[in-house]
Amino acid sequence: MPNHQGSLDLVFHALADPTRRGIVERLVRGPASVSELARPLEMSLPAVLQHLQVLESSGLVISEKAGRVRTCRVEPAALRAAESWLGAQRTNWEQRLDRLDDILAHRSGDPAAEGDDRA
Amino acid sequence: MPNHQGSLDLVFHALADPTRRGIVERLVRGPASVSELARPLEMSLPAVLQHLQVLESSGLVISEKAGRVRTCRVEPAALRAAESWLGAQRTNWEQRLDRLDDILAHRSGDPAAEGDDRA
Repeated sequence: MPNHQGSLDLVFHALADPTRRGIVERLVRGPASVSELARPLEMSLPAVLQHLQVLESSGLVISEKAGRVRTCRVEPAALRAAESWLGAQRTNWEQRLDRLDDILAHRSGDPAAEGDDRA
Repeated sequence: MPNHQGSLDLVFHALADPTRRGIVERLVRGPASVSELARPLEMSLPAVLQHLQVLESSGLVISEKAGRVRTCRVEPAALRAAESWLGAQRTNWEQRLDRLDDILAHRSGDPAAEGDDRA
């Protein structure tokens, strides 16, 4: 995988398409062959292979060939990296809201918030 | 916002760029004017405005103009939608691992896993 930023670029790009998200949703329930993945999709096999290529480049999916069958699996580490970045943003956002709450409580003279500093 | 799928397309697309993720990382710590957002970025103002346009189209950022200053804020609902989709994939993946554990324990004859069905 490329560096962390480049990796997130590729993961988020891969997830920005409903067909590719559908493939990930299928693969988190278990490995599947390319033809199993293609069956419910209303597109040509080359188009499916192109989507799989984007998913593999991002590290979200890995595949291996045994005989004539290529089996695809999801790679949870790439999903976790994206979820972790989003979680960090939510945490920072919530911490900011907490600080705003503190400031507002302090301004309104809420003794629970500001302790004894008026004494 | 467009439908849920279209919305996730736009959110993940918006997040697939390090400059746009940097803007989100800045805005979760509090609102900022366009010029504050542009200051640390090594690019032209039109380029920054284009990134902001992508972020606004995705619903991740909202902005309002007061006089000559446009202030940008993060919209946490769009971040939550993306995090929630990723969380659902992780949950499905973990449930699959749990089922595999059960199957393996059953096959190896682990009585804790299969109860009394051998009696």
